[in-house]
Amino acid sequence: MSIVDLNCDLGESFGVYKIGNDEDILNDVTSVNVACGFHAGDPSVMRKTVQLALNKNIRIGAHPGLQDLIGFGRRNIKISPKEAFDIVVYQIGALNGFLQAEGGRMQHVKPHGALYNMAAKDKDLSEAIAEAVYKVNPELILYGLSGSELIRAGQAIGLRTASEVFADRTYQQDGSLTPRTEENALIEKDEDAVSQVIRMVKEGKVMSQQGVDVPIQADTICIHGDGAHALTFARYVRSSLESSGITVKAITG
Amino acid sequence: MSIVDLNCDLGESFGVYKIGNDEDILNDVTSVNVACGFHAGDPSVMRKTVQLALNKNIRIGAHPGLQDLIGFGRRNIKISPKEAFDIVVYQIGALNGFLQAEGGRMQHVKPHGALYNMAAKDKDLSEAIAEAVYKVNPELILYGLSGSELIRAGQAIGLRTASEVFADRTYQQDGSLTPRTEENALIEKDEDAVSQVIRMVKEGKVMSQQGVDVPIQADTICIHGDGAHALTFARYVRSSLESSGITVKAITG
Amino acid sequence: MSIVDLNCDLGESFGVYKIGNDEDILNDVTSVNVACGFHAGDPSVMRKTVQLALNKNIRIGAHPGLQDLIGFGRRNIKISPKEAFDIVVYQIGALNGFLQAEGGRMQHVKPHGALYNMAAKDKDLSEAIAEAVYKVNPELILYGLSGSELIRAGQAIGLRTASEVFADRTYQQDGSLTPRTEENALIEKDEDAVSQVIRMVKEGKVMSQQGVDVPIQADTICIHGDGAHALTFARYVRSSLESSGITVKAITG
Amino acid sequence: MSIVDLNCDLGESFGVYKIGNDEDILNDVTSVNVACGFHAGDPSVMRKTVQLALNKNIRIGAHPGLQDLIGFGRRNIKISPKEAFDIVVYQIGALNGFLQAEGGRMQHVKPHGALYNMAAKDKDLSEAIAEAVYKVNPELILYGLSGSELIRAGQAIGLRTASEVFADRTYQQDGSLTPRTEENALIEKDEDAVSQVIRMVKEGKVMSQQGVDVPIQADTICIHGDGAHALTFARYVRSSLESSGITVKAITG
Repeated sequence: MSIVDLNCDLGESFGVYKIGNDEDILNDVTSVNVACGFHAGDPSVMRKTVQLALNKNIRIGAHPGLQDLIGFGRRNIKISPKEAFDIVVYQIGALNGFLQAEGGRMQHVKPHGALYNMAAKDKDLSEAIAEAVYKVNPELILYGLSGSELIRAGQAIGLRTASEVFADRTYQQDGSLTPRTEENALIEKDEDAVSQVIRMVKEGKVMSQQGVDVPIQADTICIHGDGAHALTFARYVRSSLESSGITVKAITG
Repeated sequence: MSIVDLNCDLGESFGVYKIGNDEDILNDVTSVNVACGFHAGDPSVMRKTVQLALNKNIRIGAHPGLQDLIGFGRRNIKISPKEAFDIVVYQIGALNGFLQAEGGRMQHVKPHGALYNMAAKDKDLSEAIAEAVYKVNPELILYGLSGSELIRAGQAIGLRTASEVFADRTYQQDGSLTPRTEENALIEKDEDAVSQVIRMVKEGKVMSQQGVDVPIQADTICIHGDGAHALTFARYVRSSLESSGITVKAITG
Repeated sequence: MSIVDLNCDLGESFGVYKIGNDEDILNDVTSVNVACGFHAGDPSVMRKTVQLALNKNIRIGAHPGLQDLIGFGRRNIKISPKEAFDIVVYQIGALNGFLQAEGGRMQHVKPHGALYNMAAKDKDLSEAIAEAVYKVNPELILYGLSGSELIRAGQAIGLRTASEVFADRTYQQDGSLTPRTEENALIEKDEDAVSQVIRMVKEGKVMSQQGVDVPIQADTICIHGDGAHALTFARYVRSSLESSGITVKAITG
Repeated sequence: MSIVDLNCDLGESFGVYKIGNDEDILNDVTSVNVACGFHAGDPSVMRKTVQLALNKNIRIGAHPGLQDLIGFGRRNIKISPKEAFDIVVYQIGALNGFLQAEGGRMQHVKPHGALYNMAAKDKDLSEAIAEAVYKVNPELILYGLSGSELIRAGQAIGLRTASEVFADRTYQQDGSLTPRTEENALIEKDEDAVSQVIRMVKEGKVMSQQGVDVPIQADTICIHGDGAHALTFARYVRSSLESSGITVKAITG
């Protein structure tokens, strides 16, 4: 029997600025990554987001990002591994404050945006991030790109890891995502996205842009929560997974 | 036998900007309040500060402030009680991340600057702050101005509190500090400061600017760690307290 | 013949965060106040906003606010007059950079949110703001609440001023706005709002909540650009003003 | 007759945080680059810095940096050319506000830190920066690393440029600075630094780390204003230049 987690970024609003369909997307995912105030989110948004997820019994993780609100954490910043360690510890801690205050537990940590992407290919950065997670709490699960340095670093230090795949992105024959700057980076048709995702979960394979199958581990699938189409797509992915006999449930479900 | 704690603000540097004599002041205080990145401090400074204090076995507390780096958290910002709750939870959590990562425990929380001063007189704000501390961890000690609303709110919710007095400030007959905007707000001579502090600890009294004695509770004394004179004064206060038979030790010492 | 300006806040988006109907609202107003990066807006948003307004030949003003993105500049911060001077000079200058780069001229300055409201009642703050505007460019027009300290300070230093009224707010018998914390602060019915505004422009009077007429100067009317109803209301206000024989045009039109 | 300008970064303090010997260094330099609030500096520091420099009749330039206070603008951030354009326009404008308010004129623009270094090698970024400067005011002088893309972009758009050399850094045979990560990046002995600088100004040559002479244009020399040794070194560089017959004066002196 195949099992998979569906995760989504949450709590990305800031002050008067609203982003996402946070309340609705919770109906279809099994875990959420909560922004911690560096690339998005603020203390009040974090509290409300934690309350929302706890009310629906959805697993909660920290979503630490680069200190770059204006760039939404999507621009590479050349930080040292020690800086990465420090900003990850800080943000996990901050979110954990709200979990303690509201009576919940953190399940996982998933770096955001440029931090996630840089870590995928950078061993030193990945080791620093994995160490930060481990030292704060060795029972946290580390989410990272399937096949990435981050997953390797998490396993090496003794963390439980969750290999993440993307429903709407195409892959290269080395197992990496096709960069967004290239054509065909995104899968246009929902049906194609769903077929790819089902195959990744069931067979552990994905057809690369080079036309060869690539082995891939799919413990959790990333779903986007913002955009007009997000809710419809999330619902469609989930129901398709379930129709094909895959159990959608949280990793610590 | 009289006992008192000596506390000091610590970790107020930011990026390339350095403030304070953090390493040296640790020789004379028994607890420190660590800035949490809102009014001062940053993740890397916080880690180093926690390491410093743990190495010297000094009690560590969070020093949450207003989100006002440019004003060093000293300017009143009209925040709602709910906002106060959220920024206090966030900052306690963030510092706690470093304590978990470095293997230490948080002892207390002391609001910083304008947040401390506003809370001293504002019941709603104080209740929100006390609730934040209590909900994150009911065993934390709440430091507040002796006789303030914050101390009352802490006691009301069931927190252990520490009433704070200032060595170098004069008092009014209602027990409040003489505002810095007035003359005679500061005690000029070190000898006078020390005499006042000894009397506060031993007799529970302070002579107000109006010439009448005022009852005051002195569980902890605030020492400033920055400025050229800080280290000399800290050493002098501590040795004078000890010479007069007062035991200087941490509240949970 | 009665003449009035219609102004609107513009360029309040930040990074990935979008607010307002900036492009559409430009069809109905005659001047805009552009956020300058302290309470809202960022350099890229400022450039695009300046380009938009220049393309439609709408008068452009700076909308300096408090350094409080998280609070959208709506929370009072106790700043000194000198700080007010400095943040106003900085923000006017920053916006002026884009006007120089895009080949336009700044017409006016209107403080935002809490800075506007604090200045309305605080003579020292108002004088500092008026001096900042005057020293950067004495030909700038200062927008301020009708009857406020800011208007007085602007006139005293020799600036041209524009007295601002609000279409959707009720007034007190001292000419001040009913605080938003009170009932009846907002006018519910569009028809009532429009009637009030027409009377303010044509007769220079407004009926206060206490039931007595108050004299009021109405050089410019503030229209809100965000919210679902904003565009409809703006269009209705403008057409009603014109139908009643009032000429809607820019102050330097 | 050889002429050279001596420039120094100024106004890098922030809030309560102080850096540099701003007042004293002004005795030895002929132009200053004023931080504009992104990587360092704040509105009040900018006003005071402008006043200081105007009082001593020193040429003033904007020193725009990346939006990275925590990293002091020294960490590469992957920004687009358009973002570079926008942050440069904004910061030039902001500083210009203070020059207008205080009755001075801006002479030049020199990008700071990582923005300066990235621009040195990146044609697109350099063109965006040069365009920003040119569009705000085509009479501004663009300071850039001697032989860099930034100097080329400035010349191509029609700006006057000033090729900058460093007194205390060694050079590679392609004319670039030896990266700080390598040994021998810094010249240890003041005498060697001064000899190198005199030769760069008089002969237009510098001996590279590879042992071959490299042609170099030296219109302005960068002097550091912070650090204990800064003032002594600045004085020594200036007096040595003058003793060797070089005239030290501002470019628009």
